[in-house]
Amino acid sequence: MNDAPDIAAASTRTPEVLRQIAATRQAAHARLMDFLRIPSVSAQPAHAQDCRAAADWAARDLKAIGFSVRICETPGHPVVLAEHPGPGNSGLGDAGMGDAGMGGDVPHLLYYGHYDVQPAEPLELWTSPPFDPVIAEGRNGPRIVARGAVDDKGQVSMWLEALRAWHDVAGGPPVRVTIVLEGEEEVGSVNLEGFLTEHRALLSAADVAVVSDTGMWDIDTPAITTRLRGLVYVEVRLHAASRDLHSGLFGGSALNPINALTRILGELHDADGRVTLPGFYDDVEEVSAEQAAQWARLGFDEGAFLADIGLSAPAGEAGVPALHRLWARPTADINGIWGGYQGAGAKTVIAGAAGAKLSFRLVARQDPQRILDMFRAWLAERTPADARIETEIFGIAPGFEVSADSPWVATARHVLGEEYGHEAVLIGSGGSIPVVGSFGRILGLDTLLMGFGLSDDQVHSPNEKFDIRCLDHGTNAHARLLGALGSQR
Amino acid sequence: MNDAPDIAAASTRTPEVLRQIAATRQAAHARLMDFLRIPSVSAQPAHAQDCRAAADWAARDLKAIGFSVRICETPGHPVVLAEHPGPGNSGLGDAGMGDAGMGGDVPHLLYYGHYDVQPAEPLELWTSPPFDPVIAEGRNGPRIVARGAVDDKGQVSMWLEALRAWHDVAGGPPVRVTIVLEGEEEVGSVNLEGFLTEHRALLSAADVAVVSDTGMWDIDTPAITTRLRGLVYVEVRLHAASRDLHSGLFGGSALNPINALTRILGELHDADGRVTLPGFYDDVEEVSAEQAAQWARLGFDEGAFLADIGLSAPAGEAGVPALHRLWARPTADINGIWGGYQGAGAKTVIAGAAGAKLSFRLVARQDPQRILDMFRAWLAERTPADARIETEIFGIAPGFEVSADSPWVATARHVLGEEYGHEAVLIGSGGSIPVVGSFGRILGLDTLLMGFGLSDDQVHSPNEKFDIRCLDHGTNAHARLLGALGSQR
Repeated sequence: MNDAPDIAAASTRTPEVLRQIAATRQAAHARLMDFLRIPSVSAQPAHAQDCRAAADWAARDLKAIGFSVRICETPGHPVVLAEHPGPGNSGLGDAGMGDAGMGGDVPHLLYYGHYDVQPAEPLELWTSPPFDPVIAEGRNGPRIVARGAVDDKGQVSMWLEALRAWHDVAGGPPVRVTIVLEGEEEVGSVNLEGFLTEHRALLSAADVAVVSDTGMWDIDTPAITTRLRGLVYVEVRLHAASRDLHSGLFGGSALNPINALTRILGELHDADGRVTLPGFYDDVEEVSAEQAAQWARLGFDEGAFLADIGLSAPAGEAGVPALHRLWARPTADINGIWGGYQGAGAKTVIAGAAGAKLSFRLVARQDPQRILDMFRAWLAERTPADARIETEIFGIAPGFEVSADSPWVATARHVLGEEYGHEAVLIGSGGSIPVVGSFGRILGLDTLLMGFGLSDDQVHSPNEKFDIRCLDHGTNAHARLLGALGSQR
Repeated sequence: MNDAPDIAAASTRTPEVLRQIAATRQAAHARLMDFLRIPSVSAQPAHAQDCRAAADWAARDLKAIGFSVRICETPGHPVVLAEHPGPGNSGLGDAGMGDAGMGGDVPHLLYYGHYDVQPAEPLELWTSPPFDPVIAEGRNGPRIVARGAVDDKGQVSMWLEALRAWHDVAGGPPVRVTIVLEGEEEVGSVNLEGFLTEHRALLSAADVAVVSDTGMWDIDTPAITTRLRGLVYVEVRLHAASRDLHSGLFGGSALNPINALTRILGELHDADGRVTLPGFYDDVEEVSAEQAAQWARLGFDEGAFLADIGLSAPAGEAGVPALHRLWARPTADINGIWGGYQGAGAKTVIAGAAGAKLSFRLVARQDPQRILDMFRAWLAERTPADARIETEIFGIAPGFEVSADSPWVATARHVLGEEYGHEAVLIGSGGSIPVVGSFGRILGLDTLLMGFGLSDDQVHSPNEKFDIRCLDHGTNAHARLLGALGSQR
């Protein structure tokens, strides 16, 4: 990571850029609506051409604001790779790629986003067609309703529009910019690590990755996400008899794989809700007193959080504060289980096999491979005679934590404070953004997570929305961040 | 129970009846194939009309051999109730029902069977369509392969054909016969007790119930089953959040119903394979030394029994002999479990609910209602805050044990010995035939269980079969039993 940027030296062009954004707001919204009309559902093969159309749309837009752009093929959907050398090289839409020396001593930012979206089903629950964006009134004023409104096309449009305004006002951004816009985030970014490895020389020359795919604390309180949980997702299949058996004729002699699987998985937690794998918490660091105090000041209401989903009693580790359980403590959850007869009524069967899908959410410094090995050894110890265990891995990603003292975090807090008129908070997220781990491991980059989503945005659900108030503040904040990081010219 | 029948007075017509059976064997097999073509799956509402068709088929067949027949409606599938007054009243197909005096001093047998079958799923594992019966070669010669081949249409066809031969040769059976053929055995005989109660006056006039729904010891060794296990079948549903949740955003705060359910059910057995419900074994009697010695002489090879289903290590209670575990000890088996995401790949979800189906196999003198209450209390003690448990009962029946000294057992052993050329053995069955308990409790009748299934018949599994050698011996044995119990005329 570079030395701390000098905030005092922020570009004096920022006020002009913000005026330009304000003057062209309607056109920016219209461009986002166009982007949202492309049904770029990465999980559904029928939408493969739409994914490519979304990549093409973004590529054209980036070229129009002075970027050199390549659409890079992958075994799946393509990645849009774009570059701008920064000050003194503005307007060179056809400039050559990959000259790491261009841009001089200004910071080099790697913007990451994704143009793909989740499937829109179930369609009948949408109040308007998911790929025909509308502006509707909500409790925070007008909002855009569409699949991808916030995840992630809306959030991508914020830094796209900020870059456009810098282009219009100053001929280009005041920093060097590289952009990676992928099309498979919603299907596990299965080809992104290969892409990052292939383009490591270019991409690792950046100083920091900037990602807007996270949320604010609330509509009035901007936030920087400094922690994400990692993930180990594993399917376990326990095989016993070679066929389904009559539970009367074989019960008492033949191994029942559902009995065995529930017996094993039932031991995953102790009475205090702690995961029982030996060594599971070895690398989990305590939250600092300072961080704990800051989270306590957020006044998180776990009762209201749970009431919203019909619950009232906190689960998880006994005696641990709510935000620590959600952001700073690892978990084990069984995400699916199956075996035997699931139909109506009774079938007196002893199944031949049973299975489950489990995920461990991990925190920074827990090694996902070590957790996976630990779990497999734990399973093997508990596997009864005659049972055969198979495991299959569907995700493995480390947790993430960026220091509150990072200069990038400090600059982002500063510009968010200017934009909103009060200080941004540092929060965690219990979810995982695997690419953040890849940036660290493959490119050696830290990631700045500055996002503008809200918890009621219906991400991955029908009627996904993005409040225009969040969108507009987010565009301004990105423009301010570019100015603050850029050199004066 | 009546006095012992006089075996020496067996009807002299038996040899003629056996010749008639031999002469018409092909037609008998063809009738069974017709019966098997009716997909009378009682558990699946889509097959309700097929269940009625099977009842109609049996009713027509019984009328054709001189029975008075009624199809009795129930809240579920109908019961076929048929009567024949016995000697001196042959051929009275239209005779009135319910005259308990008819038939004089000959015994009155109540035959019970069921025309419904288990679901055929998973269909892809069948080598021929389950409801398109075929004759295939097996290690014991030709066999009929179809759902219901042995359970119970094939076994019903044995006494139907024996009664037909008596009808053809002697104008009717040499005893009084009442038949109850139900259509809900595979769904727990939920309406049969109501039926038995409604028709108690007629049915309790019988001397003994005769049921063929059990097995032989092996292909050469006929058997009478003197013990059956009872059953409590219960579905458990555990409800938590009002909707599916993102496991990253909620994991560590929201109750996971699959975690909770596996934790509860994982405690169902201790490390020695014993059921942990307090008091579960209170009413379980030890097997007598004499009975234990007889079972030991059978030389049961549990290794081979398990090898046949791909297993090698006995499960169940540690230190208990195999036949005791299968016939004389209660069990708890989870027959099905479900919850969350069961599809391909990963979905990071915390489900709103999870469920399981469980059955307890019980032995004589264990009260099924007491076991059910015990289980519900045990569940309630373990239900975590915020979870809501629902239970639904799909079967409740006591275990059964008939004395080896019963005169009906003695007669059946005698005719089986004549048919096979060596003595029949007395065995248990780990399965449940709930109606046997109902016959005792509601009608005051003991039950003679003389069945001809084999352990490799794939009952309740794909490719269910019935060896024709068993089918033919069974038909003969039933014909002999009728002769042995009937008066000479």
